[in-house]
Amino acid sequence: MSIKQWKDRVEQWGRFELALSGPSGGNPYRDVRLIATFQYKNRRLEPEGFYDGDGTYKIRFMPDEPGVWRFVTRSSCSELDGIAGEFLCVAPSAGNHGPVRVKNRYYFEYEDGTRYMPFGTTCYHWTHLGNEELEEHTLASLANSPFNKVRMCLLPTRDMKPPQIAFAGTCPEDIDKTRFNPSFFAHLERRIEDLQRLGIEADLILFHPYDKGHWGFDNMEPEEDCFYLRYVIARLAAYRNVWWSLSNEYDFNKFKTVADWDRLIQFVQQCDPYQHLRSIHNGTKMYKSSTLYDYTKSWITHQSIQHWDAALTTNWREAAAKPIVIDEISYEGNSSRRWGNISGLEMVHRFWEGFSRGGFVAHGESFIDRETRAWISFGGLMYGESAERIAFLRRIMEEAPEDWIQAGEDGTYKLIYLGNYQPAYRYVELAEDAAFRAELIDIWNMTITPLEPVFQGKSKVRLPGKPYMALRLQKV
Amino acid sequence: MSIKQWKDRVEQWGRFELALSGPSGGNPYRDVRLIATFQYKNRRLEPEGFYDGDGTYKIRFMPDEPGVWRFVTRSSCSELDGIAGEFLCVAPSAGNHGPVRVKNRYYFEYEDGTRYMPFGTTCYHWTHLGNEELEEHTLASLANSPFNKVRMCLLPTRDMKPPQIAFAGTCPEDIDKTRFNPSFFAHLERRIEDLQRLGIEADLILFHPYDKGHWGFDNMEPEEDCFYLRYVIARLAAYRNVWWSLSNEYDFNKFKTVADWDRLIQFVQQCDPYQHLRSIHNGTKMYKSSTLYDYTKSWITHQSIQHWDAALTTNWREAAAKPIVIDEISYEGNSSRRWGNISGLEMVHRFWEGFSRGGFVAHGESFIDRETRAWISFGGLMYGESAERIAFLRRIMEEAPEDWIQAGEDGTYKLIYLGNYQPAYRYVELAEDAAFRAELIDIWNMTITPLEPVFQGKSKVRLPGKPYMALRLQKV
Repeated sequence: MSIKQWKDRVEQWGRFELALSGPSGGNPYRDVRLIATFQYKNRRLEPEGFYDGDGTYKIRFMPDEPGVWRFVTRSSCSELDGIAGEFLCVAPSAGNHGPVRVKNRYYFEYEDGTRYMPFGTTCYHWTHLGNEELEEHTLASLANSPFNKVRMCLLPTRDMKPPQIAFAGTCPEDIDKTRFNPSFFAHLERRIEDLQRLGIEADLILFHPYDKGHWGFDNMEPEEDCFYLRYVIARLAAYRNVWWSLSNEYDFNKFKTVADWDRLIQFVQQCDPYQHLRSIHNGTKMYKSSTLYDYTKSWITHQSIQHWDAALTTNWREAAAKPIVIDEISYEGNSSRRWGNISGLEMVHRFWEGFSRGGFVAHGESFIDRETRAWISFGGLMYGESAERIAFLRRIMEEAPEDWIQAGEDGTYKLIYLGNYQPAYRYVELAEDAAFRAELIDIWNMTITPLEPVFQGKSKVRLPGKPYMALRLQKV
Repeated sequence: MSIKQWKDRVEQWGRFELALSGPSGGNPYRDVRLIATFQYKNRRLEPEGFYDGDGTYKIRFMPDEPGVWRFVTRSSCSELDGIAGEFLCVAPSAGNHGPVRVKNRYYFEYEDGTRYMPFGTTCYHWTHLGNEELEEHTLASLANSPFNKVRMCLLPTRDMKPPQIAFAGTCPEDIDKTRFNPSFFAHLERRIEDLQRLGIEADLILFHPYDKGHWGFDNMEPEEDCFYLRYVIARLAAYRNVWWSLSNEYDFNKFKTVADWDRLIQFVQQCDPYQHLRSIHNGTKMYKSSTLYDYTKSWITHQSIQHWDAALTTNWREAAAKPIVIDEISYEGNSSRRWGNISGLEMVHRFWEGFSRGGFVAHGESFIDRETRAWISFGGLMYGESAERIAFLRRIMEEAPEDWIQAGEDGTYKLIYLGNYQPAYRYVELAEDAAFRAELIDIWNMTITPLEPVFQGKSKVRLPGKPYMALRLQKV
């Protein structure tokens, strides 16, 4: 057993990486097992290592406590076995709050206790075209947006001809599902780090049903699925901004049953040392809300819903006491498909409907006749009218109590979204022991207008009788 | 048996009325039975007579065939028994198309075969305040509107102090449920005739749940219910523009079960010689569409639905092969109640959503701070922005094929409503053997813009990417 000292200083929730040389013959992806135990005081975590090509093996680790961590490897290959060392974990730098966790049943926070509210968007294949300029555009667009989560796929669709994919090979004829493509992952990892720098969570979609016999990735053997998941987790779990979305529109995949998905999600739960957020996203015709995955299952951390009707958020909160993230609520745009052509106003309206009921809604854009292709597919530029209004909503929500629904029930804060309705007044039940100022919020014109007088207890608040307004009441 | 000749000429679907003198002592409403047989060739109908006060008994009859009709009375009172006579039924005058019937499962027509599409509105108690000037305003408002059906109640609510009601007495303390108020009915009948002159159907709501122990009309004995229904039918069934709505929001009445309603609707079916349209209207929280009455029951002629979501029309057509009339879809206005404060645009949007899916949607207005009180309660003036756009829709629908849904499936006509969606193009499947012109309809600005070129077969139609548009394709 060789002992080495690593002098690296790694920040809390940063990434320690150990690179080792080992055999390159045979199929190291399949033949070599490598795992390490990392220990700080009584805390032990055991991430798997992975083969990174060219005789290089790596183990990545995300320490979650400051202090000296010790590690030691175990491997089926003697060259890689028993490598030990230590490193110093230091305080996180500014902007590093750790991974996102569920808080108080319906909400989220970073591991350092900083509040996190997902304002998501979707760019399924933004890293897959091999177009660096477009990817830079995507990152610049995100940097100028209110979005702090991106849904993105690891696997290509039937229609794509990507220069590289997760597995060895580039076309269906030469795919080798027993080997991976480290270059694909290195590129993906760079982009995940770019997102991390922007404060954006990468909601990684591990499977999707848009393959239909082309690549065959939607219909692999159970061992192949797990082989793929283990490699992905070994490489990516140490990135603190990763979430696991087992599948997009899982119910459109005819080769897998709900029991299969249960097994695969549990497998991810078992492999991931850090317990990143885990969910699965439905696709069934959006009316049939009864076909949503049973989100009460213990291995699911949050409800990743597709539905057009954010008003159902109230029902979903009752159905499962987990955060509600409506990851697809239709996209702003002019696609010919019903899911991809709502107006900016309708998108903003749905955001307010969901947030005001205690859920989180995600954005997407699908304009089909502009300079860059649809944002939801390949990123690039955004053309819609909703994003800046979602930024406005985000500011409003950041000023809200952490549990704004409970505060609303307690009468200590109210955010009442009126939607298509235009009442001339509204009765609100406010706490008796405090004075409240009321503001009228125009969700489209982004104005906040104070209303007179100060309110207390049960109050009648006069309203302008216009649609798309919200009413906010906060303690003076 | 005395035989009299009546020289009256009565038009087809007009009203023949026979007035007879009889006893006024005791309680003639309860004690005297009077019925007549009207016969033309082999057709026989047997309307009941009714006591009209002051020793006068009447029998009303609506002949539905031109020619000489003979009649003879039967009565428990010898003075009224065996009165016989005849009258000549002549062709209907202009504008008289007879009562409305169901046609081709999902649609309506007048009995003379003229097309009828309900464009309804609601003025529940417009005849109840004893305010003639307001009633004239209501009629003038209706005359200038697109509306050809009005929902209206026979019974007062808890909160009203009407000068007269259907029963004898004017306040809960002196109500006599064994006697009626002929003056109340004479006034109501005059207003039903006013509506008839305007070509408007009177959708009469026979019971409602807004009594709550005040008048007691929502909680009468079964015999009292039937006593009331028999009198109403004897007086009103001969008005060709009458529909029977057994109850508004029947499920809010805690004293009656669905079985009670079944029995009462069947009683109306049995008493009404002319088989006017019959339905019942739900009130349950609009999300719970499963609580709608089972409209497949044979005694129901059409589905009188309350729901906010006209997109469900497609489901309701599958659930029961009867016309869908969404009699309450929320009201335009600024009421503080959620059912009464949608915007004009939202109302017009819901109309288009329902009509384009093969249903009929009804209007209502509930502005609470204007010169006249809420239109839905007491009529008067309309203040909203939807009515003129509904008139625009009515013109579009009058140009559509009678079964526009089937025509859409056959590809011989298309009315595609895009709602909140704003696609850049749409594929439409048109018949191969004809050329079609396409028009873009702006439902709010009421414009119809021709689109180039002429289309045939499966076609890609470019659209402007704006919400609240409809696309119409008609044969050149």
